[in-house]
Amino acid sequence: MKKVEGIIAATFSTFNQQGELDLSLISPVVEKLIGDGVKGVFICGTNGEGLSLSIEERMAIAETYVKVVNKRILVFVHVGHSSLKECKKLAAHAQQIGADAISSVSAFYFKPSSVGNLVDCMAEIASAAPLLPFYYYHMPALTGIAIDMLEFLKLAETKIPNLAGIKYTATTMHEFQSCLHYKQGKYDILYGYDEMLLTALSVGAKGAIGSTYSFAAPLYLKIIDLFKQGRIEEAGAVQYESIQMIRALVKYSPIPTQKKIIGFLGYDLGPCRLPLTALSREQENELKQYLEEVRFF
Amino acid sequence: MKKVEGIIAATFSTFNQQGELDLSLISPVVEKLIGDGVKGVFICGTNGEGLSLSIEERMAIAETYVKVVNKRILVFVHVGHSSLKECKKLAAHAQQIGADAISSVSAFYFKPSSVGNLVDCMAEIASAAPLLPFYYYHMPALTGIAIDMLEFLKLAETKIPNLAGIKYTATTMHEFQSCLHYKQGKYDILYGYDEMLLTALSVGAKGAIGSTYSFAAPLYLKIIDLFKQGRIEEAGAVQYESIQMIRALVKYSPIPTQKKIIGFLGYDLGPCRLPLTALSREQENELKQYLEEVRFF
Amino acid sequence: MKKVEGIIAATFSTFNQQGELDLSLISPVVEKLIGDGVKGVFICGTNGEGLSLSIEERMAIAETYVKVVNKRILVFVHVGHSSLKECKKLAAHAQQIGADAISSVSAFYFKPSSVGNLVDCMAEIASAAPLLPFYYYHMPALTGIAIDMLEFLKLAETKIPNLAGIKYTATTMHEFQSCLHYKQGKYDILYGYDEMLLTALSVGAKGAIGSTYSFAAPLYLKIIDLFKQGRIEEAGAVQYESIQMIRALVKYSPIPTQKKIIGFLGYDLGPCRLPLTALSREQENELKQYLEEVRFF
Amino acid sequence: MKKVEGIIAATFSTFNQQGELDLSLISPVVEKLIGDGVKGVFICGTNGEGLSLSIEERMAIAETYVKVVNKRILVFVHVGHSSLKECKKLAAHAQQIGADAISSVSAFYFKPSSVGNLVDCMAEIASAAPLLPFYYYHMPALTGIAIDMLEFLKLAETKIPNLAGIKYTATTMHEFQSCLHYKQGKYDILYGYDEMLLTALSVGAKGAIGSTYSFAAPLYLKIIDLFKQGRIEEAGAVQYESIQMIRALVKYSPIPTQKKIIGFLGYDLGPCRLPLTALSREQENELKQYLEEVRFF
Repeated sequence: MKKVEGIIAATFSTFNQQGELDLSLISPVVEKLIGDGVKGVFICGTNGEGLSLSIEERMAIAETYVKVVNKRILVFVHVGHSSLKECKKLAAHAQQIGADAISSVSAFYFKPSSVGNLVDCMAEIASAAPLLPFYYYHMPALTGIAIDMLEFLKLAETKIPNLAGIKYTATTMHEFQSCLHYKQGKYDILYGYDEMLLTALSVGAKGAIGSTYSFAAPLYLKIIDLFKQGRIEEAGAVQYESIQMIRALVKYSPIPTQKKIIGFLGYDLGPCRLPLTALSREQENELKQYLEEVRFF
Repeated sequence: MKKVEGIIAATFSTFNQQGELDLSLISPVVEKLIGDGVKGVFICGTNGEGLSLSIEERMAIAETYVKVVNKRILVFVHVGHSSLKECKKLAAHAQQIGADAISSVSAFYFKPSSVGNLVDCMAEIASAAPLLPFYYYHMPALTGIAIDMLEFLKLAETKIPNLAGIKYTATTMHEFQSCLHYKQGKYDILYGYDEMLLTALSVGAKGAIGSTYSFAAPLYLKIIDLFKQGRIEEAGAVQYESIQMIRALVKYSPIPTQKKIIGFLGYDLGPCRLPLTALSREQENELKQYLEEVRFF
Repeated sequence: MKKVEGIIAATFSTFNQQGELDLSLISPVVEKLIGDGVKGVFICGTNGEGLSLSIEERMAIAETYVKVVNKRILVFVHVGHSSLKECKKLAAHAQQIGADAISSVSAFYFKPSSVGNLVDCMAEIASAAPLLPFYYYHMPALTGIAIDMLEFLKLAETKIPNLAGIKYTATTMHEFQSCLHYKQGKYDILYGYDEMLLTALSVGAKGAIGSTYSFAAPLYLKIIDLFKQGRIEEAGAVQYESIQMIRALVKYSPIPTQKKIIGFLGYDLGPCRLPLTALSREQENELKQYLEEVRFF
Repeated sequence: MKKVEGIIAATFSTFNQQGELDLSLISPVVEKLIGDGVKGVFICGTNGEGLSLSIEERMAIAETYVKVVNKRILVFVHVGHSSLKECKKLAAHAQQIGADAISSVSAFYFKPSSVGNLVDCMAEIASAAPLLPFYYYHMPALTGIAIDMLEFLKLAETKIPNLAGIKYTATTMHEFQSCLHYKQGKYDILYGYDEMLLTALSVGAKGAIGSTYSFAAPLYLKIIDLFKQGRIEEAGAVQYESIQMIRALVKYSPIPTQKKIIGFLGYDLGPCRLPLTALSREQENELKQYLEEVRFF
């Protein structure tokens, strides 16, 4: 697989009103995303509530995406789980059904004690899908694991033959840049905070994975386009639009808020699962009004 | 079920040398524990690497314990999981096979945003085993969730009909004492740090759940006995023996170290699973020497 | 100086309505405390807003306490400061004016990088008052420095000739107990959380320093007395009264709330300094009502 | 004062071998910095060990800088202190001696409880130097205070007449960008992490304050120059040189390491004060070798 250039949408869960899986909702989402110009989907990650799903549900979702996408864009399957044994099942399944890549967060109940320990865990997962590229999913804000990613690359390089790169979801751009430069760009380092996409581009990012790419991809493609043309200040103005929108997500609970926004746009993907909770009616109204004020719609 | 008086052992995983489940190792452990005078076992918890196991493994372990124990002592099944859906499966299974109680940690990937949210999550789990007493497993050091347990009790009381109490694994003894006093002792608040058992007794604890009760129960029963006789200073001297032993656990990695100690005592329960790692040979020797110095053996 | 047996009151700042020092308020406080049976005062600490005062103010307060107390009870002067140079000035001054002991928190802007570094800092401070006993003030919740106190004692023993002990303000009672046991009780380890006094007694504490001893000393002396008589359950009941009162402090801002309580008792010590802020009128009323409900008055 | 365009050097303490202030070392540093093209100095901040100095030392340093600089570049005086009373003394002094601006970190022993509380604290400090522009020094990694800076601006705007902007030392570039955009750029938001300068430029930064500008200003001026010319990739290559150098700082203790580097360059500014400690001889050699490898010299 070549390095990713462009944006990959971290998709949302698709539930019916009872909170049970509704796989029929996936197809319209995929068509919209392909129409919007994304290069791939990242499924069952944080944003997709992967850790709130059962193994069987995760496999069913992966199968549906692979089938619906039908090789038109990339399908990244997140296989992270508190049990490495379950991670490996999910990884092997992803390879078997024809996904394009796998990715995993660190163990997060027992936390890795060192970079070596983290690499050993990831090596075990990656080994279960040896034909697929493996991306480590770095997200210290959620997992509490802030191991230096440059050290990770140096060690993982020797132990994970199918290591492809990192989904880098952190604000430490100097470390991100170091990973991009490592061995003249040997690895594919995809950036994970949509509200900082422009800063990532400025230090050399070519690809990104993010949740708001699921419903606002054109905004970000414009940032990339303006950046490529050297029109940085204009790119900044578009990025600022994204930042204003994202301030609303953070004000409430980010994932349910985004599912609500995607609902405003005509795609009702159902509620979230506990511990995530829906916005109140009042919050929904506030959100809508705010998004109108910042001209998101 | 009456409140627990005495100690419950948080048991360890039992693996063969390949790290696969070996259920045959459970029986000798249970016989030892019954001989030692413990009142129950707490299985598939933190100490038992419950979150590193698959659902199927967890069910197999629960079935084996229930069968081997055969009602001689209590069997608490930990059903915590990042997915509430999986928690509920484990809870329903525990009820069906005849376990005595269930317990669960908070969601820990997405963290509860409030006491209300935590109660809602626990209510969902508890509802899947309505005939069993439910104990919330409070362990902020590992989960990062430090919600006030008195507020939890006040709210959970109205929403979880089968709420029995809390496995309270934190050092905030004033809050622990408040929970013990709540409604003249309505709930069963079991203490979770073995090295602080005496402090828990001093504020009214009657029961405790802990990992070192798996291999050093007599030490702690002596503390309880001396405390009941009003011989506090002597109880303190025995507690200090426990503290010295536990300093060794914390120096290395606590769970693998304890599995090694139980191995020294003649029960080889196999390795741990990643991300936990075995002690080096040198650390093993150091550990043995240290335990001899503090006269643990 | 012998080890402290009993309780030491961590006193509050005494300001006029403009927030400027009013030294005349110190004398009535001291008389009340002596009447209440405390064994000493701990001045210019966290509770006394020592870090919000200027050096000159701290020296003036120390001089006033030493003079007013006039050797009837002990005067501990807290000399902690972000600048070790200033700590040393305060330490030398405390010795010169006839204080009984000095104490210091760790550096807290730049944080010590190791136990060795912490000991070196404390050694420098202690050396400026070589004739006074030095107590390290351990308070990880505020300073963020959670260095193992047993390791601290082992190293400080060799480097701080006038080391007397620790003001131990943390809930890790096993470590507290280890410090009490170190070299058969060589050091004076004074406990710092009033709401956990009974747990400290149960593992061997003889002395304690705390803020609520400034206005509720009789309650705690009763705990100690009951404990000594072996009436632990009754001691627990009194401790629970203290816990209920302290829940009110924590609900609002602890230090301003306590200054308000001491005001209710007839000692108006003025406002706090920013960043601490006064309770609103509504909060004051709520507080009063709550304290009446839990029968504090 | 107009907004700052360019870089301001956060200077180091200047001590003799005994760790006492040596004001004579300031003049050569200033001449070097002016020669290097910096627009100003930021004195007695984190990098300058301001919090490890006495008030008298801080005033003496400020006076020396103002005199030596003699209006050729800007002098920012950091006046942060755990005591607001002392902050105000330092602020008034800075105004009186003719400094160009003042700046302060948040209170950091007692931490502000809300944005309103933080603004009230900063308003009090700023009011003591009403003729000077005031910059809030935001540095959550050190102070632990991560209040939203956009909310800060909105509130501070109404309460601090001489508010000029923020020294923004955090990696949250979306929030940084929001501050830059606030009211069409009403405030001067200076960026504080040298290793992320390019990312700051990409979202609109015009000025920056940092420690490595004290000895490597030309490197950063090149980044700014290339960026202005639209040669982003080349700017990234130079930024990467900076990142590699800064990795060495972080490996050891950043401030002593930088004082050592400035020593390699011919400016011996003496040791640091505790709790900071000098590099070992071995670390010095390692550092030198590393800097040669990454071609810093």
